[in-house]
Parts: sequence; structure tokens; C-alpha cells
Amino acid sequence: MKQKKTLSIVGLGLIGGCYAKTLRDEFDMIYGIDLDERALSYAESEGIIDKGFVDPKIPLSESDLIVICLYPNLVEEFVEKNIDNFKSDAVITDAVGVKGDLIDRIMGKLPSDIDFVGAHPMAGREVQGVWNSSEKIFSGANFIITPHPLNHAENLDLIEKLAYKMGFKTVTRITPKKHDEIISFTSQLTHAIAVALVNSDEKNFDTNVFIGDSYRDLTRIAMINEELWDKLFMGNKVNLIRKIEKFEESLDIIKTSIKQGDSESLKEEFRKSTVRRKEIS
Amino acid sequence: MKQKKTLSIVGLGLIGGCYAKTLRDEFDMIYGIDLDERALSYAESEGIIDKGFVDPKIPLSESDLIVICLYPNLVEEFVEKNIDNFKSDAVITDAVGVKGDLIDRIMGKLPSDIDFVGAHPMAGREVQGVWNSSEKIFSGANFIITPHPLNHAENLDLIEKLAYKMGFKTVTRITPKKHDEIISFTSQLTHAIAVALVNSDEKNFDTNVFIGDSYRDLTRIAMINEELWDKLFMGNKVNLIRKIEKFEESLDIIKTSIKQGDSESLKEEFRKSTVRRKEIS
Repeated sequence: MKQKKTLSIVGLGLIGGCYAKTLRDEFDMIYGIDLDERALSYAESEGIIDKGFVDPKIPLSESDLIVICLYPNLVEEFVEKNIDNFKSDAVITDAVGVKGDLIDRIMGKLPSDIDFVGAHPMAGREVQGVWNSSEKIFSGANFIITPHPLNHAENLDLIEKLAYKMGFKTVTRITPKKHDEIISFTSQLTHAIAVALVNSDEKNFDTNVFIGDSYRDLTRIAMINEELWDKLFMGNKVNLIRKIEKFEESLDIIKTSIKQGDSESLKEEFRKSTVRRKEIS
Repeated sequence: MKQKKTLSIVGLGLIGGCYAKTLRDEFDMIYGIDLDERALSYAESEGIIDKGFVDPKIPLSESDLIVICLYPNLVEEFVEKNIDNFKSDAVITDAVGVKGDLIDRIMGKLPSDIDFVGAHPMAGREVQGVWNSSEKIFSGANFIITPHPLNHAENLDLIEKLAYKMGFKTVTRITPKKHDEIISFTSQLTHAIAVALVNSDEKNFDTNVFIGDSYRDLTRIAMINEELWDKLFMGNKVNLIRKIEKFEESLDIIKTSIKQGDSESLKEEFRKSTVRRKEIS
């Protein structure tokens, strides 16, 4: 498949801005679609996009690739509403952190000449908005593609190729089901822990002057976009509850070791975590 | 009190090396005391210390300030064994992360012309050794002094002044008891969580290609010095168990919200953690 020439970014927030910035050289024309006109005019004036639209009709009709960076619950609705606006042979992709049966449902609605490639760029920041987007956010991060049986192989390859162009370090293909299981551990569980940690602060002292890097690092993600993460947690309920419970068991081993003064068992946990963490870059 | 002129660092590991490097301009002479001759000769050849000693007798007899950077359980023993080696008017300080009644016990043994100022530089890395020491580690971090009623005010002021010279951003004075309570939350709990998180990995996939910054940040400290952290956990048992239980309660609110599909309660937790985390720099 030859290089796509026109790109539309739907939802020009932090992640949408990162797509636009890192794909700048890959497309002749980049459109931004958003209800927020400030985001559009900022992105236009900074050259992040060539032109912004509130109404998706025109840009979609011209686009070879459409990247939807909307909240999880809005992606399907957007595709449905615009089903007649996409160009023949268009490739659509998303950036939703929990897949569920979203891709199945969308593929069931799209005509066969339009493809939808599920994707999850595993990158983010504790800030929002196109104003905070940066090439650095994607650089060195992991990218996941969740192929559907009806996807065209060339379109999966296109998204993979573009992910590397965007600066991602690894691109992994996996089923939506497996994706959600894994992500409940590496992403949703970590956010649940950070939020719980900050909220368990008894605040009977000025935390700020007693913290080291560990507390700072563990809690950065406790500054959390409540609407987005509510959708992600609720959309991955069964997996996430299971992972929280596995984590609780693991924490309980440590607690019991401390209670019983069992240094051998405690050190065994430390050795295990050290070896495992060293495997991660 | 005039500026101290000779400094001994006892235990020339990561933290000892940071003290030596950041106090370089404050002393005419810096001695290193360690059983590991490789650490001493490395530090000598790099100019981190002026001279290294395995036997502490001579350097201690000449030192105005002694910084003990040994494992928590070895500090008291070191002071006892060397009680006749300290110079009159010497000031001793430590870097132990849990105080218990250590300072009380040591002050009860020292002659009145030698002072011991309890301190806790809240900085570290997941690597060890003087080889990894750097001025950057202390830069912008928090420093805690745990004064004892018998401490000379001028010596408390000296350690505070030097902490700022070392690059620390805040210096806070607090009782050892309060220190231990606070630190069980900001430091030991965070390490327990990181270890438990990594150990709860079911390892049925290659974690490395599915992680984002959140997992990376939360688990960095799961690479842990088992001997040191066993001492810190066990030395702060009652506080740490209490903080683990508060954290578990807080995580349980999140788990219950997810189970019940109660988005309002979940978002309330997110809002709370976001506000609280924003207060921290």
C-alpha cells in the first residue's frame, strides 16, 4: 500500500496532538476535528495541523487515515454518525486504553472497503490538552495493535510502520481480550494503587517535606482525568478486580512477614521483585 | 561555631559518596572509612575523598564531623566500638531511615563533649556503591533532622546549614518518633507497594512490551537492597503495618466502587487524589 496522504485527527487533545506532531512528515495534509475551537486554532497557529474543523464531514471525506482520540465511550458513536462520510479505502484507528468488544462492534457496522485497526499507544501524561502534546511522549514507549479477523493485512502493517515513525519502541499485536487482561495489570492497577496511596495519607503532617523520589514517582499518576479513567476502570471491571486481588495477596505476604518478624520471607519477596524488575527496561 | 575542617565518611557506599561529593568544598580534608578497599581506592583516585582507611582509629581522631552511612543495625555498634577514638567537640551524624530509640541510646553513651545529630537525607537510588554516587541525588530532595534534648543548638544548625550546601531543598526538624511515623507512609509503604505490585505479576505474557510510564515509575524501587530494607521495615513494624492497613482500606474503596459500578464514588476518589497530589511538588 502506498503512503497515505491525508490524515484526520478526531479529538485534538494531548494524544491527538502527539499523533499530529509525530506524523507531520508522513502526510501531505493533516486535519484536526474537535468541538473545542480553541484547540483547533491553537493547533493551526502552531502548525500542528493544517486546518481545523468542528464538523467532521469534509475532512473525513478527504482522509486516507483517521485517528480517533476520543474518550472510550465516544468512539463507536463517532464512527456510526459518520459512517457515510468516510472515503472508500479509508483506514480508521483509535487510541482507546480498553478494547472490550468495541472493535468487533465497529467492524460489524463498517462497509468492507473501510477498515478499523484497533490500537493503544501506551503513553500519556498527567496533563491534558493539545497544548501539552509533544513528540517526547511517544518516544521509546510501547504500542499495541489489536487485530480483527476482518482487518486487511496491509492496513495492520501500515499502522505498525507509522507507530515506529511516531517514535514507539515496540509494536505488539495481540487480541483485544488479551490486551484488556494485560492492561488491567500494567495500567489500570497502577493507577488504582497510586490513587489509593495518596488517599490513604492521614494528612497529620506536611507530606511535601517528608517525601523522597519513591513517593513522588509512585503518585504522579494520582493526578488523574476522572472521566477518562472512570471509563477505563469500568470498561475493564472483571480483569481489574482480579488484578487488584492478586496485588492484595502479594501485599499481604509482605504484611504477614513484617507482623511475624520473618525477615527470611520478607527478603525473599525483595529478591523476587528485584530480579523481576531488572528484566524491565 | 566556626566551619568544621576535617570530615570522615563512615561507610563509603552510594549515600556516603553523595555526602563526600556535595561537601567537597566545605572541608579541607575528607576521609573515607570502609571495609571495602575497592571503594576506598576508587574514591581516592576520583578525588571523592582525600584518603581512605579500613581502620577508623586515625581518621576519627582527627575529624570534626563524622557522617555514619552504615546499615541501620551497625550504627550504634560503630559508635560504641570507637567511643574513645572521637576527638573532643566532634559532631557525629547518621543517615538512617528509621530512628526508633537509636539516638537516645547513643546519646546516653557518648561523653558530653561529643554530639550526635540524627539525620535522614531522603534520597537514594535503586543502585548501590560509591561508583553510583552523584551530587544530583541530593539536589532538591528533603532532609530531616531529629533533634535530641541534649543536642547542642549550634550543632543542629551546623547540620542544617550543611544540608542546604549539599543541595537539599528543605530541612525539617522533627522528633524521632514522629519521623518514623511519617516515613513509614512516605517511604516504607511505597517500597512495600512497589514490591507487591511487581510480585503480583502473573507473568503469563511479556510484561516489558505492555507497560507505560506508570508501571515503570511505580516499580523502579522494587529493585531493592534486601538487607537494608529488611532492617528498615522491621525497625518500623508498628507504624508500617498501620500504614499498609490504611492503604488497604483506601484501595478497597476503589475496588468496591468498581464492583458496584459506582462511577460517582470512583470519580470522587480520583478528584481527591488529584487535588492532594497537586499539593506536592
